[in-house]
Amino acid sequence: MKVLFAAGESRWPIWEAPLRAAIDEAGLEIDLVLDADPAEVEAMIYAPTNASAGTTNDDFAPYVNCRAVLSLWAGVEKIVGNQSLTQPLCRMVDPGLTQGMIDYVVGHAMRAHIGLDRVLATQDRWEVVVPPLASERPVAMLGLGALGAACGQALAGLGFPVLGWSRTAKDVPGITCHHGPEGLRRVLEQAQIVVLLLPSTPGTENTLNAETLSWLPKGAAIINPGRGPLIDDEALLAALETGQVGQATLDVFRIEPLPQDHPFWAHPNVTVTPHIAAETRPTSAARVVAENLRRLRDGEPLLHVVNRAEGY
Amino acid sequence: MKVLFAAGESRWPIWEAPLRAAIDEAGLEIDLVLDADPAEVEAMIYAPTNASAGTTNDDFAPYVNCRAVLSLWAGVEKIVGNQSLTQPLCRMVDPGLTQGMIDYVVGHAMRAHIGLDRVLATQDRWEVVVPPLASERPVAMLGLGALGAACGQALAGLGFPVLGWSRTAKDVPGITCHHGPEGLRRVLEQAQIVVLLLPSTPGTENTLNAETLSWLPKGAAIINPGRGPLIDDEALLAALETGQVGQATLDVFRIEPLPQDHPFWAHPNVTVTPHIAAETRPTSAARVVAENLRRLRDGEPLLHVVNRAEGY
Repeated sequence: MKVLFAAGESRWPIWEAPLRAAIDEAGLEIDLVLDADPAEVEAMIYAPTNASAGTTNDDFAPYVNCRAVLSLWAGVEKIVGNQSLTQPLCRMVDPGLTQGMIDYVVGHAMRAHIGLDRVLATQDRWEVVVPPLASERPVAMLGLGALGAACGQALAGLGFPVLGWSRTAKDVPGITCHHGPEGLRRVLEQAQIVVLLLPSTPGTENTLNAETLSWLPKGAAIINPGRGPLIDDEALLAALETGQVGQATLDVFRIEPLPQDHPFWAHPNVTVTPHIAAETRPTSAARVVAENLRRLRDGEPLLHVVNRAEGY
Repeated sequence: MKVLFAAGESRWPIWEAPLRAAIDEAGLEIDLVLDADPAEVEAMIYAPTNASAGTTNDDFAPYVNCRAVLSLWAGVEKIVGNQSLTQPLCRMVDPGLTQGMIDYVVGHAMRAHIGLDRVLATQDRWEVVVPPLASERPVAMLGLGALGAACGQALAGLGFPVLGWSRTAKDVPGITCHHGPEGLRRVLEQAQIVVLLLPSTPGTENTLNAETLSWLPKGAAIINPGRGPLIDDEALLAALETGQVGQATLDVFRIEPLPQDHPFWAHPNVTVTPHIAAETRPTSAARVVAENLRRLRDGEPLLHVVNRAEGY
């Protein structure tokens, strides 16, 4: 089977060895190439090579015999609207990515919870401030996909009451699940920490806006390792100004890298991280790609196929 | 039953209401007092009122009818060596304390793990540094009592490989347990983060000293919410100087509050917190006291009785 690595030459040195190792481990006979006659390609390993916002203009039409496009990224919003893409598209659901996301979300949630910024700023004096217990600190998890569910359950395992929200009804053990517009209000009204792990779709744009931010208890912390468009930047800045939002930790932005003149950089209560939370880990992700290639060979249903109508 | 609150008048306003509520909840008839004829006292709720180091000189001899001394503190080293104390002594094992300790340990372990100090110091620029996954970061938990086991399991639940160590052999699910001097070396040789939750006894003094610190991988992080004497301060400062220890977060000290001229205050890689990790939470702790008073009334074995020979 001829498989095209269509994630850019710059990523080839990072991915080649883990992919070949995973293909061998799975016992597959695959001709993995960086370049090929499109008509000969049976599957593509894909990531956008264009870092700017918007939909990629990659042309998938010539790949008439391609039976699967396997994304190396969890988020597929840059490709799902590409009209030339008619092949089945699979998202990456990487156990390494999930662990990395748990590390980021739990790390920054604990930072907000134990008031670490204050601890570090006042660590030159003996000043006893006892934070509330995790059991007294409700956390909202917006988005209950693979990443949201895993992070929500990690926080619940630490004792936080976790309120989950998704657009359509879901049921995740350990998380009190709500859905729909009314559910969002119920969740945000209680949440002292809000984590955004929704996919980026027209339906989720500006999920946090002036109105929904006003539902939060005063001083809530926002953590966004999901997607930039989930938050209305202007509304967040206004809420930070009044203290309605106490602190925001943002890993994703409408334009990345975040432009140097963006007010987030200078805001004392905003922490900018450079889109590191969802960094795919080649070793574990390559095994997921290999498993889908095996399924393709054996005629079994592919894992993590994107629902094109839903956009994820 | 006459029960003396012997934890100091200054603590009475914090404890009276939770204790009375827990006593009512347990259906007990108790005369809870701040002062009494010693011969009439049947049980004592105790905490040292003397904040300095060393053994308290409280005199327990006149309490000839006292059948239990119920400590409000988890650590009993200030009282266990008191020769006048012949009554059964119970440590506090407070579910609120356990949750608070998990919050502290997980918060500071995640801080070390995701490199939060660096993230906050460099959050004015887009600089991608991806930390290893939790699964690639071994943590040593020195001490596998109620608190050590709970914190170790919380970290294991987040994906960290957790190596536990105790003086005598223990078996805690989710934790790879070692014991004895050889076990300590095996654990420290692998640990990138070391958490100290051992009791303070003559046998645990200076568990981290020049030799044992040298066993760690270079740059390891130390978190001590246990007891001050577990660490040789001079050896730790020397190891911080060479970079052998990358960062130390210390909540407990040989003298508390930590004297203003102690070099820990000024060291850039030391975080001093004011003995907040094991802060007993009155609501949950009062329920534990009430349960032991009920057991006393009903002639059942008391919970958490201290083994005086072991010192905890």
